Amino acid sequence: MSGFEEQNQTQRAFGWAASDSSGTLHPFHFARRANGENDITLKILYCGICRTDLDTVNNTYGISLYPVLPGHEIVGEVIQVGAKVQKFKVGDKAGVGCFIGSCGSCDGCQSDLESYCPKSITTYTIFDNGGDKNYGGYSDILVVDQHFAVHIPENLALEGVAPLLCAGITVFSPMKFFGLDKAGMHVGVVGLGGLGHLAVKFGKAFGMKMSVISTSPSKKIEAIEQLKADSFVVSHDMEQMEGAVGTLDGIIATISPTQSLLPLLNLLKLNGKLILLTPPDLHKPIEIPIMPLFSGRRTISASMAGGMKETQEMIDFAAKHNITANVEVISTDYVNKAMDRLAKGDVRYRFVIDIANTLNP
Amino acid sequence: MSGFEEQNQTQRAFGWAASDSSGTLHPFHFARRANGENDITLKILYCGICRTDLDTVNNTYGISLYPVLPGHEIVGEVIQVGAKVQKFKVGDKAGVGCFIGSCGSCDGCQSDLESYCPKSITTYTIFDNGGDKNYGGYSDILVVDQHFAVHIPENLALEGVAPLLCAGITVFSPMKFFGLDKAGMHVGVVGLGGLGHLAVKFGKAFGMKMSVISTSPSKKIEAIEQLKADSFVVSHDMEQMEGAVGTLDGIIATISPTQSLLPLLNLLKLNGKLILLTPPDLHKPIEIPIMPLFSGRRTISASMAGGMKETQEMIDFAAKHNITANVEVISTDYVNKAMDRLAKGDVRYRFVIDIANTLNP
Repeated sequence: MSGFEEQNQTQRAFGWAASDSSGTLHPFHFARRANGENDITLKILYCGICRTDLDTVNNTYGISLYPVLPGHEIVGEVIQVGAKVQKFKVGDKAGVGCFIGSCGSCDGCQSDLESYCPKSITTYTIFDNGGDKNYGGYSDILVVDQHFAVHIPENLALEGVAPLLCAGITVFSPMKFFGLDKAGMHVGVVGLGGLGHLAVKFGKAFGMKMSVISTSPSKKIEAIEQLKADSFVVSHDMEQMEGAVGTLDGIIATISPTQSLLPLLNLLKLNGKLILLTPPDLHKPIEIPIMPLFSGRRTISASMAGGMKETQEMIDFAAKHNITANVEVISTDYVNKAMDRLAKGDVRYRFVIDIANTLNP
Repeated sequence: MSGFEEQNQTQRAFGWAASDSSGTLHPFHFARRANGENDITLKILYCGICRTDLDTVNNTYGISLYPVLPGHEIVGEVIQVGAKVQKFKVGDKAGVGCFIGSCGSCDGCQSDLESYCPKSITTYTIFDNGGDKNYGGYSDILVVDQHFAVHIPENLALEGVAPLLCAGITVFSPMKFFGLDKAGMHVGVVGLGGLGHLAVKFGKAFGMKMSVISTSPSKKIEAIEQLKADSFVVSHDMEQMEGAVGTLDGIIATISPTQSLLPLLNLLKLNGKLILLTPPDLHKPIEIPIMPLFSGRRTISASMAGGMKETQEMIDFAAKHNITANVEVISTDYVNKAMDRLAKGDVRYRFVIDIANTLNP
């Protein structure tokens, strides 16, 4: 970090960070940059807890750069705007997701897909990429270029909006891009967690028939009754899986497949699409049987979080259809306990930290 | 075969068939069914020699049902029409490809993709599927339901049309379905054989930039000068492959990948699509690195021959753009020599048998 940039770190900030791979979060004082001419400064109101936060504080992938101050499902109120900011005014509600910067000139950036920019900058630093150290949303304020913030409509409950900024766009983006958003289609969602439950909600709003494919029979009632899923398939029940063969136009797989993709591919109709959202290990090939690709012209693809334009579209769609995440709002000092529970899958379906009311320096 | 059906085999026919896995073809007398009310009978004029013909007569997959009378790239003249035939009249030129029957009610059939019907009937019997024994186009006449024949426009050289019925539709169908048919796109074709050279021709007619990816540097000049490909990449030249990284909107892989798909996936842009047309072994998984799917939202899919509706569209498109296969026309008694040469890849780019002038009982 250059001397100039150090001098520029003039906004005092406070949050909770982990210092090492114990993953324990603790109060942490730091500084954020002065609000630049294209920047807005947010007073953070809510921040969701994403699985990536847990994996990063615990150094699951062995690449975490400490201290880690996580959080990329951020909703706040604009408290400062730069001279060139026209998109927001003080008092607006704004959201920030997984990215706060990109190159602006690559294919991804040029097609409004900043999330696929090879030089994209994550909201909080996950590993050492030679760039500045960034701190996320488990904190009181955030400074961000206006391009990387979206408007949050007034009619949505803000605590339920926060998870839309990562979990929401991560399912919405591929559903739109791969055409799994047409009324009358039948789409499966593998895994009923933060991402999966939102995929079901978006899918129902698109007018589709939605099936949940899960390892947990205990989630069946909530899937059907609360989330309005049309059916529930237990993935290790061969009879149920057999009964669903050839029924789906697409599958949004929010849970990593572990062995073969064959059981999921078999659920697809002709021209069906299997979209992977979370790889088990980015560098480990998955075994993919080739026969179902030929016999049914099926497709395997993968998707990451979306770009800023579609994130705003997703928020606007959510506002129109009154879609928010099902959340458990917690106080900041519960965050370590929440991480423990998240590791066990003990949350319906997202923890959201009530930053504004419970983060005390 | 029932007694009724046997009685119904009233049209005497003659062709060349293989009796065993030596693969040697020899003169063969047989019978075809009487022309039914929905049938047309063709006097066969030309028949292309597809790689599948070679693999079937040689029993490459260990499932061939002898005698094998191959040929599914058939062009002929209509010499008889059934009472309910409205699509053709005597004297019309017609083409028949890989399929002569399907169930009519499955998802594939209902969406004009008879080639994906689980009960589709191949033009000549490849393996014992419990159905009637069918004989292909290395013969004097063919009886076929009018639905499984297409019109051949008068302006095309018929010997060059024959390979369109299999090789042509097999590349045209995925280029259309996967959207790799937009002017300005840049598409790669792996393998410059019967399928590959037609993919280049269709791609140029679509207004696209076409790159050939081949193991054979010797094909570069013909690819560029004759087929008008825009560039040629030798697949085992790491420098050339590196130079093509991230340049392609899609890849039509007419040759089976043998080990990893990584080198091909790396050639794709953001949102790029890799379409496999020939599996190395239908039951053997291919190693697929997962990282390039996520980092570039890339897609892997596969495709078989197309349906009858799009086959007619392909023929009409070919007529409009004067596209035919580059062929070496042979006499029927050259067919065993042609098979030997095909096994060595020694053909530019398709053998076509001049049935009408050289098949003598």
